[in-house]
Amino acid sequence: MLKIKKIDHVAVAVTDVDEALARYRQILGIEATDREVVASQRTEAALLPLGETCLELISPKGNEGLQKFLEKRGPGLHHIAIEIEGIEGALAALKALNIPLIDETPRIGARGHKVAFLHPKATGGVLVELVEPAHEAHPTEHD
Amino acid sequence: MLKIKKIDHVAVAVTDVDEALARYRQILGIEATDREVVASQRTEAALLPLGETCLELISPKGNEGLQKFLEKRGPGLHHIAIEIEGIEGALAALKALNIPLIDETPRIGARGHKVAFLHPKATGGVLVELVEPAHEAHPTEHD
Repeated sequence: MLKIKKIDHVAVAVTDVDEALARYRQILGIEATDREVVASQRTEAALLPLGETCLELISPKGNEGLQKFLEKRGPGLHHIAIEIEGIEGALAALKALNIPLIDETPRIGARGHKVAFLHPKATGGVLVELVEPAHEAHPTEHD
Repeated sequence: MLKIKKIDHVAVAVTDVDEALARYRQILGIEATDREVVASQRTEAALLPLGETCLELISPKGNEGLQKFLEKRGPGLHHIAIEIEGIEGALAALKALNIPLIDETPRIGARGHKVAFLHPKATGGVLVELVEPAHEAHPTEHD
């Protein structure tokens, strides 16, 4: 059983992060608190807080899957990310259940978090990312 | 400026709510706390809490737009709903900005909440619903 804390973010695929930020500023009055190029995902990402979760605007910087998504479907909802405790154990448990995974071990995503994607087949069509904030993973006495 | 409280729910279009509930139970270990046929939207909806927000699984019960979405794209992420204070004022403000709206006045959605959809053109591709819980709208001394 996953130890779920919350929805960390809802990701929206966009062709131009600046243009999308201007739209969300105008319509919802929200601003990005974080913006970065995420090397491991080959994306540019901007995070806009909405309560305890965020909208994440993402555009491809070499990410072919995201580029194809934009070409096929146009900009729109791309994935949801769920914050859990113990991402390695969660992935092992899901693998033992034969749940199809894109990442069997975590990678480092935006904000330095550990992240792993389930295959959309797992949920019947929704791309789900598991996230564990790095600062909460295995703290030691001298951290 | 909208008075945003949180993401109320992230909606997932599904062909069969029971099948989808079984998948989310297996993968994430989450259960529906609410399930209903939403007359105003011509959908069936099940709500699965994830922190302060919910996943909402929706299938069409006469909703042609949702039926077409499923035929064209298959099951997947459909819209996000943002809880705000003062939905009527928010819609008037958005209309004054020429933001394209599907609903210029609120309808009654799942759980009796007041809801209204912005046109996906407004955000450049994301269908956004505004939600105001009925019990928080215009409380009076004797409510």
